[in-house]
Parts: sequence; structure tokens; C-alpha cells
Amino acid sequence: MACLRWGIASAGMISNDFCVALKTLNAEEHNIVAVAARSLDRAKEFAERFSISKAYGSYEELANDKDIDVVYIGAINTQHVGLSKMMLNCGKSVLCEKPLGVNLRETKEVLSLAKEKKLFCMEAIWSRFFPAYEEIRSIVNSGKIGDVKYVYADFGIKDLLDVPRLAKKEMAGGTILDLGIYPVQLAVMIYGDEIPKITTRGSLTPDEGVDESAVAILQYTGNRLAVVTSHGRVNTNSEASIVGTKGSINVPFPFWCPTKIIVNSDQGQEIKEFPLPDPPLKLNFTNSSGLRYEAEAVRKCVSEGKLESDFLTHRQSEIIATILENMRHDVGYMLEQDRQPVVMASQ
Amino acid sequence: MACLRWGIASAGMISNDFCVALKTLNAEEHNIVAVAARSLDRAKEFAERFSISKAYGSYEELANDKDIDVVYIGAINTQHVGLSKMMLNCGKSVLCEKPLGVNLRETKEVLSLAKEKKLFCMEAIWSRFFPAYEEIRSIVNSGKIGDVKYVYADFGIKDLLDVPRLAKKEMAGGTILDLGIYPVQLAVMIYGDEIPKITTRGSLTPDEGVDESAVAILQYTGNRLAVVTSHGRVNTNSEASIVGTKGSINVPFPFWCPTKIIVNSDQGQEIKEFPLPDPPLKLNFTNSSGLRYEAEAVRKCVSEGKLESDFLTHRQSEIIATILENMRHDVGYMLEQDRQPVVMASQ
Repeated sequence: MACLRWGIASAGMISNDFCVALKTLNAEEHNIVAVAARSLDRAKEFAERFSISKAYGSYEELANDKDIDVVYIGAINTQHVGLSKMMLNCGKSVLCEKPLGVNLRETKEVLSLAKEKKLFCMEAIWSRFFPAYEEIRSIVNSGKIGDVKYVYADFGIKDLLDVPRLAKKEMAGGTILDLGIYPVQLAVMIYGDEIPKITTRGSLTPDEGVDESAVAILQYTGNRLAVVTSHGRVNTNSEASIVGTKGSINVPFPFWCPTKIIVNSDQGQEIKEFPLPDPPLKLNFTNSSGLRYEAEAVRKCVSEGKLESDFLTHRQSEIIATILENMRHDVGYMLEQDRQPVVMASQ
Repeated sequence: MACLRWGIASAGMISNDFCVALKTLNAEEHNIVAVAARSLDRAKEFAERFSISKAYGSYEELANDKDIDVVYIGAINTQHVGLSKMMLNCGKSVLCEKPLGVNLRETKEVLSLAKEKKLFCMEAIWSRFFPAYEEIRSIVNSGKIGDVKYVYADFGIKDLLDVPRLAKKEMAGGTILDLGIYPVQLAVMIYGDEIPKITTRGSLTPDEGVDESAVAILQYTGNRLAVVTSHGRVNTNSEASIVGTKGSINVPFPFWCPTKIIVNSDQGQEIKEFPLPDPPLKLNFTNSSGLRYEAEAVRKCVSEGKLESDFLTHRQSEIIATILENMRHDVGYMLEQDRQPVVMASQ
């Protein structure tokens, strides 16, 4: 299968950017077959924008479209688990926006269903697929910066909690699930599959009780530490550093979708740049033509018959979900979903 | 009193740098009267280096020298409390290297004795007196970056624990007391006299049990957070950021003695530089001709009859000591001194 046939679930801002990113790839390898939204009008408008031939007013129709290999899920956090299961149950592979689940239970439910159905499934942590992140992995694996002992990353956006869904508990808002996941996934990428000791402090919004800030220390064996920060009231530097015994890598703003890294080692300082292609249409978010890298990674995995990506395994998504859930609970942010029982894959 | 007459207690590396810094100031305002070390030969060699007329082979002789107004104490951590008390008891003002005490008890003992004796006493947290720090205070107080909600600072030196005294518990070694004090004092400078909630994680050296790394989250009221990191196994960026609701200040390496800050606000980005004078003699430490600023601050305070500096009050030294002691205990680093009873000032 050379050409991957995409379905797009939800016609919102991130789906727009994902389709712009798809347009920067080879049209013979990525074809957008259909888009679905809860409103047929919105789906039609979106389809027109990207010259997509089919628009659906329900996600069920998309799930049942036989011409689709993989569905990109760009809906809000609380719909991820339901839509992912719907698509998997209809035989579609899934690329679902982060967080795949609002907690570990949801994440495991989706991933176990994907395993049962023998379908590819991945949480859309796009950062992992940027050439800059490839280079980070390559440098760390080469031993050039020695043994990594300290990872720091912060992500703060001043007006985050002005976005209605992010201020609301019923939509699983707050900073940890939307911003904190980026620092956390970086720590997990560097330190691997160990579950660290987690200590978090932060504050909840006075009305809804979603977290407006959180700082966690992740303590791994071997005196390896990470500090991860999310903030919804101030613009932090939103940069990262990865510090080893022989050198370090700095990832400047925007560290979650970077086009540049700075490497300090015995060989001095090197600046490595990875420019993005110009987007053919308007984007909503920073550097999001870089969604192309995860889209292409999905194509490769699916065409090779892989059920998960080597660069973001199911296990890693589960560890990330574990850390995020612990952080939420540390600051006193419980979701109704945290109290629900586990549903087995085959149910 | 226009000219401040200095005595120097200990002839080590930091005392060298302090005297180099004094030489960059007006010789009619700063006079080095005498130096003392436990070895008369070392004191003599030091005196010759800086053309100091008197050299003593004991600290008692320095304490009893009637020609001295203030003693700079550059001895190791565990001698600070004893030497500070000795000098105060002999009627000398004191500028003592940080940490003034290895814990809150020692710090309080020195400061209460200074109050009783009505003598000026200050912990030598030189950072506070750099023009760059003056500018940071001025910007924060002006409201230009809004309400500060997040402070981050890390200080990591790869080979720190190769320095013998820093690896040893009997010398109150470890990273928190020697490096951690710098990030902590910055957080305290920004957030003021509130004692925050403190949560620390880190590791102890396997042999001596001094801390080789520590990260603390300081949580203040009003959703104000600080993250402070000290590390003795890796070179962290050793920079700081102060993030407010309307902008931020970045303090690049070396944030503890900076000659540059970067201010982000509504008015865009401004880089402010504060160059140091060229040192007339060899220095041991980074930017340490900048010790001149604290020396000049001491002269001004003493000549105005002040007993403490407005820019580093006794209360602030106590709060810093409180945070450092909590951090040490959080990571399991107890000192013999922590178990000793409080000695009243008049004893």
C-alpha cells in the first residue's frame, strides 16, 4: 500500500492544520478521503477548503467508509476514547490527538482494543517525529552528551484558560493534559520506560477546579531527574534542556515543535536547524505544518504492517498517561472518568 | 567614616577574589588592613600578593586588631558560625560567605548576636548587589512584567563533588548549601518574606551522604511557583527566568553573577548589559571581580550606621536558611549541627 487513505474526525482548528500538513506531503502517498464533524455544514465547509470529496455529518459514517485506512482524530480530549474505539471497531487504524485518554484507564482501553483488532494505533504526539527530535535521540544514543541526568522543560501559555474547553472540567481542561504532556513526553523519550517517582505542586482554578499550573519532579533511578512545568497564566520560555555528564542539548522555544537545537559537547557548541516547508494554507498553531512528520510516520508503519511506532510505543503512551494522571491527582484534580471502571477490550 | 577598613579571615581562593574585587574600588574608600589564616606562612604570602601590611597566623589576632571595621569571612562553611561570632564578639562588623550558617539555627545565632552587639552583619550573597540584579528588582517593582508567577533557576557544576570539602559531610558539603543557595536566594528576592511550601527530590552520594543533586518546588500563595535545582554531576545551563503575567526576565549563564539580562515585555525584547571592570589580578571564580558590588554595599551600610542591608535583610537570610535546611532534610541529608541545641546570643 503506497498511498495512505485518511479520514479526518472533527473539522476543528487542529484538523485544519493536520490537513495543511498532509498537503505538504506527496499526494500519491497521502490522500484525504473524507472528513466528518457533528455538523454536516462544518464538514462540508472543511471538505471544500481541502478539496476532500466526502463530508459526513456524523462520525459513524466516517467509521463505516470502506475507502479509509486510518482516521485522524482531532476532536476534544473527552471524545478521544470513544472515537478511537469507534474507528478501531470498524477496522480503521487510528492516529488520535494527545492525550489519547484523559487517564491511564482510557489510554489502556484504546490500546488494548487496537491490539485485539490488530490495527495500528498511535497517540498523536507530533513532537516525537520532528527531525529535531530524531536528532536529539540520535545524539543521546551516540553517547555524545554522556549519561543524561537532568531534563527540564516548561510549557506555559498566558491565555490558555481563556479557551472555553480548557477551563472546563467536563471537557477535561487544565494545563497538565494539554501542555504538560509535552514536557512529560520529552522526559519519557529520554529516560525510557521506567515509571519515575512523581511529585507535583500546582494550583486549581477557583471555579471549575482544573489545574492552572503544575510543576512535577520526576525522579528516576541512577540520580536521573526531570522537571516538567505547565502553566496557563503566564508565557514561560517554553523551552527544554537535556543535560548529560558530557554535554547538553537545548531546545529553544517552541520546544514541542522545534526547528532548531543547540548541542553543547566536547566539540564545542553546534546549532542544528531543521526548517519546515512553507504551508500551502493558513495554519492555526505554531509550526504545525510539522504535523507532516507524524503523518508520514503513520504511513510508513501502516504500509509495513506495524501496529505501533518504534518512536512512540503503546507502552510509552501508557507511561505518559500514568505520569499525567499522577500529576493531576497530586494537585487535586480528579475527573469523573478516573472513577469509572475499566472496560475490557472485547466489550 | 569614608574609608572602610577590612580584615580578611582565611587566605583561600574566594578571599583572593574578594581582595581582587576590592582593588577595583576606590582605594580611599576600601583599605585592606590585615589578613589571617591558620597558617602564618599562607597569611604572609596572601598579604604580599595584595600589599597588605599585617598578616596573622590566627583568627583571634585578626578579631583583636583595633584598626579593623569589618571582617570578610571566606573560610569553609563549617567555620562560618564560629568565626562570625568571634568577630562580632570583638566588635567587628561581618560580611560572611554564604551560607552564613549550615542551618537555620546557626544563621539565627549569628544574626541575633549581631543585633545584640549592634553591629552590621551580612551573608555574602554577592548576586544581590550586581547591577543586573538591581535592574531585575527595578523591573519587577515597576510592574513591567506584571505579577510574577514562576521563577526557575538551576545551578549545576559537573565536577563540584570532586572538590574535597564539597564531598564531605563533616565540612557540610553537597550541592544545596554551595549551589542551591543561588537559585533559592533568587526566588526569595522575587517572592519576598513568605515561607513557601517546599518539596524536594534529589540523591545523596553513596559514601558520605551529601546531596549530589536536588530539585525543589517552592509553592507560594497566589499560584506563585519557583523551581530551584542544584547539581554536582552535570553542567546545567545555570540560568534563570522570572516569568510574570505581562512579560519575563531571562538571566543567562552565569545567572548568579550576571552581566546581562534579557527582558521580554509589551515593549518587545530588550537586552541589558552590565560589564564588569577588568580585574587587576588573577581570579579563581567566574566574574568574581563582581564581589566589588557587595563590598561597596557593605561600606555604604556601615558608614550610614545600618545594621543590615535593605537588599539582603537578616529576615531574608533566615528564610533562605529555612528553605535550604528543608531541602537538605527532604533528600535525607542531616548534619550533626542540625541536632545541636540553640545557643543564645549573649552566651
